[in-house]
Amino acid sequence: VEVTPIGRIRSPWLTKESCPIQPHFADGALGTVEFFPPFDQGLDSIDTFSHVYLLYAFDRASPVRLQTDTFLDDTVRGIFACRHPCRPNGIGLSVVRLLRREGNILHVSGIDVLDNTPLLDLKPYIPNYDRADDATPGWTAGVTWRPKREGSE
Amino acid sequence: VEVTPIGRIRSPWLTKESCPIQPHFADGALGTVEFFPPFDQGLDSIDTFSHVYLLYAFDRASPVRLQTDTFLDDTVRGIFACRHPCRPNGIGLSVVRLLRREGNILHVSGIDVLDNTPLLDLKPYIPNYDRADDATPGWTAGVTWRPKREGSE
Repeated sequence: VEVTPIGRIRSPWLTKESCPIQPHFADGALGTVEFFPPFDQGLDSIDTFSHVYLLYAFDRASPVRLQTDTFLDDTVRGIFACRHPCRPNGIGLSVVRLLRREGNILHVSGIDVLDNTPLLDLKPYIPNYDRADDATPGWTAGVTWRPKREGSE
Repeated sequence: VEVTPIGRIRSPWLTKESCPIQPHFADGALGTVEFFPPFDQGLDSIDTFSHVYLLYAFDRASPVRLQTDTFLDDTVRGIFACRHPCRPNGIGLSVVRLLRREGNILHVSGIDVLDNTPLLDLKPYIPNYDRADDATPGWTAGVTWRPKREGSE
């Protein structure tokens, strides 16, 4: 299956070391999602939503590995049990807040991806579909966020 | 960017007409997610989570269109303002409940994808990252689910 960027994500995060590990930790970090023409024609009605999913390519990730340490603790986990970028197919997923649309550009907050990341898709966050109220945090329960270590990713 | 299936999703839904439009409407529909070796090596710790995201290829979607009618009402929307399969890059996203793991197979419920759909990625649903408690339903507010029309997709 061949996928092609439909736009790019602009963010304040220029290096892996500076980039927050998930939107939750990105607080109000502001960014933009720029759609390449003609894909901006697919944005009608998007501004009715407060949140959207970004799907993007981890274009600067290290080689794929199936087990990895994580940003949160020192236990090795399966790559599918974490959100680490070094994963098969290298597709990232983030929920961000949609602030406003200006033509082919969406202004968002809570952005946690590297500047110039290739956008693959954008979907509305629909609470009825996407909010799992009884979801449990799995192995992330009780872990404390820590800054990235040097050279980690 | 080239992506390759890492497994396949088995579900009760053999035709587009029978397939529910989102997991929310799939109720307790049971399915399995089969990982092709060696990708099952990436599943360690996955069974600590109650919910997971499935990312998959819309392999039986009609040609891409940037504006479309939807399953929910008769207004034409931008493709990025809905979850319709006929989208650029054709990647689907669903939140499902993880029931248990048996080797390379995950048993899930709330499955809303066609049988034999190619799996591209699986990520843990982490409430701190993924549950937007103040998200609004956008244009889907107040719309009533309706059965699919003949020939629609």
